[in-house]
Amino acid sequence: MAETTVRFGILGCANIARKVSRAITLAPNATIWAIDSRSIEKASRFASENDVPASAKLYGSYEVVLDDPEVDVVYVPLPTSLHVSWAVLAAEKKKHVLLEKPVALHLTELDTILEACEANGVQFMDATMWMHHHPRTAKMTEFISDKLQIGKLKSLHTSFTYDAGADFLKNDIRVKPDLDAHGALGDAGWYCIRASLWAADYDLPKTLTALREPDFNEAGVILSCGASLRWEDGRVATFYCSFLTNLSMDITALGTKGYLRVHDFVVPFQENVGPFFVASNSKFGERALGCEPIPVEHIVTTDLPQEALMVTEFATLVNGIKSKGLKPEKKWPTLSRKTQLVLDAVKVSIAKGFEPVEIVN
Amino acid sequence: MAETTVRFGILGCANIARKVSRAITLAPNATIWAIDSRSIEKASRFASENDVPASAKLYGSYEVVLDDPEVDVVYVPLPTSLHVSWAVLAAEKKKHVLLEKPVALHLTELDTILEACEANGVQFMDATMWMHHHPRTAKMTEFISDKLQIGKLKSLHTSFTYDAGADFLKNDIRVKPDLDAHGALGDAGWYCIRASLWAADYDLPKTLTALREPDFNEAGVILSCGASLRWEDGRVATFYCSFLTNLSMDITALGTKGYLRVHDFVVPFQENVGPFFVASNSKFGERALGCEPIPVEHIVTTDLPQEALMVTEFATLVNGIKSKGLKPEKKWPTLSRKTQLVLDAVKVSIAKGFEPVEIVN
Repeated sequence: MAETTVRFGILGCANIARKVSRAITLAPNATIWAIDSRSIEKASRFASENDVPASAKLYGSYEVVLDDPEVDVVYVPLPTSLHVSWAVLAAEKKKHVLLEKPVALHLTELDTILEACEANGVQFMDATMWMHHHPRTAKMTEFISDKLQIGKLKSLHTSFTYDAGADFLKNDIRVKPDLDAHGALGDAGWYCIRASLWAADYDLPKTLTALREPDFNEAGVILSCGASLRWEDGRVATFYCSFLTNLSMDITALGTKGYLRVHDFVVPFQENVGPFFVASNSKFGERALGCEPIPVEHIVTTDLPQEALMVTEFATLVNGIKSKGLKPEKKWPTLSRKTQLVLDAVKVSIAKGFEPVEIVN
Repeated sequence: MAETTVRFGILGCANIARKVSRAITLAPNATIWAIDSRSIEKASRFASENDVPASAKLYGSYEVVLDDPEVDVVYVPLPTSLHVSWAVLAAEKKKHVLLEKPVALHLTELDTILEACEANGVQFMDATMWMHHHPRTAKMTEFISDKLQIGKLKSLHTSFTYDAGADFLKNDIRVKPDLDAHGALGDAGWYCIRASLWAADYDLPKTLTALREPDFNEAGVILSCGASLRWEDGRVATFYCSFLTNLSMDITALGTKGYLRVHDFVVPFQENVGPFFVASNSKFGERALGCEPIPVEHIVTTDLPQEALMVTEFATLVNGIKSKGLKPEKKWPTLSRKTQLVLDAVKVSIAKGFEPVEIVN
């Protein structure tokens, strides 16, 4: 194994870990060193069902992977309510932390995690896959930052919804108040919030107002909700997330001079193809007949899927810390923190009867 | 001229009348009988610049067309503040009324117009072009009503924005408080509201909350704004309209089982081609890799542009009343009224500091 291959331990065999374990295998600078579940049997079943390399160690209780000195990174797909204890422990054991989203029940918990990571010199990153060096994200970022092409961003709408189905709505950790707790807001709204921040060049909105009325399950967990956001300079955004609606993953960003649309921003419809649509300086034609120019579709291809690009990026950061003495990259914890701040504000606004909430960093 | 050819008088030479005069010429059952402006010179210039048939009469003051016994219909593209007086007078003169949107400054004014039309047995219709027998609208209506394809509508987002430009923002009637008064809400938001009602099978929302913060010009006219709507059964919608943003004309309708998107609903990018996108029962693939099915693009072609289809439909209704003794079609005044109700609620909510407003019919 090359010196630069970063060794991942997977802490818990959640469904999403199936995708990320494949991504670790695909990433050129990462390997699965260990699978750690609540029992050896679970770890073993996960390994055989997910083409985990035979070399991977199988552990039967969560603590063990943190004590394995060969492990560089722990990937933590545990329920959100367990994040703070395991992520802090991982940091204390000098493991870099790739944490599933939603990252925490509340900002104070996330800050506890981030402080532990900082104190122990380990890299923190949440597993928001589309953000990470996907060439489509790079191209979209270029467009949305280009004053000639989009001008000044004015308005944004995002949605991430999917039809979770009866079994999920009864049994999944994402509908249990003691497990993921944030429901659709944490699982789907997280992406909308991140996309809104991305489009706004990561400026925090000044106020947020939850939209009437969310759907809740009997235990009070959010099954659908929305919010409107306003930035100090007048930019506005709305988003909608749901477990009760057919799959949608849309960003529409309207600027003074152009616009951008993408319809599969969370998980590209096809793994290696990333389409998006832009138009600049569109006008009605003479006598308001037709419009020009018509939006253009850009198609960006990628050899590696976005989750493998995320793992690659994380492993590169870890290698920089291990081999070159670099400091952990602050961008990723900062973005997690901003996303959590806005997520918390949605819950506060709902609790206050849809009153506007100031977002204070 | 065939007996069934309906004779239109155009009351005022507004810019939009250039599009509608062409539409009257294209419609197989309509003709421009008269152009009526504040001066003969204006009427004459309009006629020569817009290929109006040489047979059309040219009148130099607004009253004259209403006294021409040969005129069946008056098309009224005057500023909104003038609608109530001219539309009522037209109805009293037994002229059918095709009225530009926004139709009135307030519901009470619209009701005055509608009562005059009803009392005089004339057809009323507002000139919301995309609603009228465009084969794309018919196909989209089919999809959005199909419980198997879209399920139950849950969430909707619409936008209509365009970059009006410096001259418009200084001089156009749509930024003058004493003329069109509703600004971007009346000119662009009108379409978003109508689209929201269309997608909701014309059920009125129960409450509306304007979004923070609209843009206003110095005279207090809205240059951009948005709102969130909620129906009694939990359906929700948001919209955004603006004079300050690159052209967008989007509907995204999310149902429990499917979704529909259209990106040029107000004015098709190309006159004779109407695209829209649908997906039903989309799911993530195994391991949440990719999604299936990918949305499908439908392309609906039309021989006549939507504004000519609108004129054709209106002329057909007028012929039914004239020749067959039918009653005026109530659908169109009802839809105008619902649209106005929602538009008024946006203004009330803004005036009340973005408080929710109950929409009471």
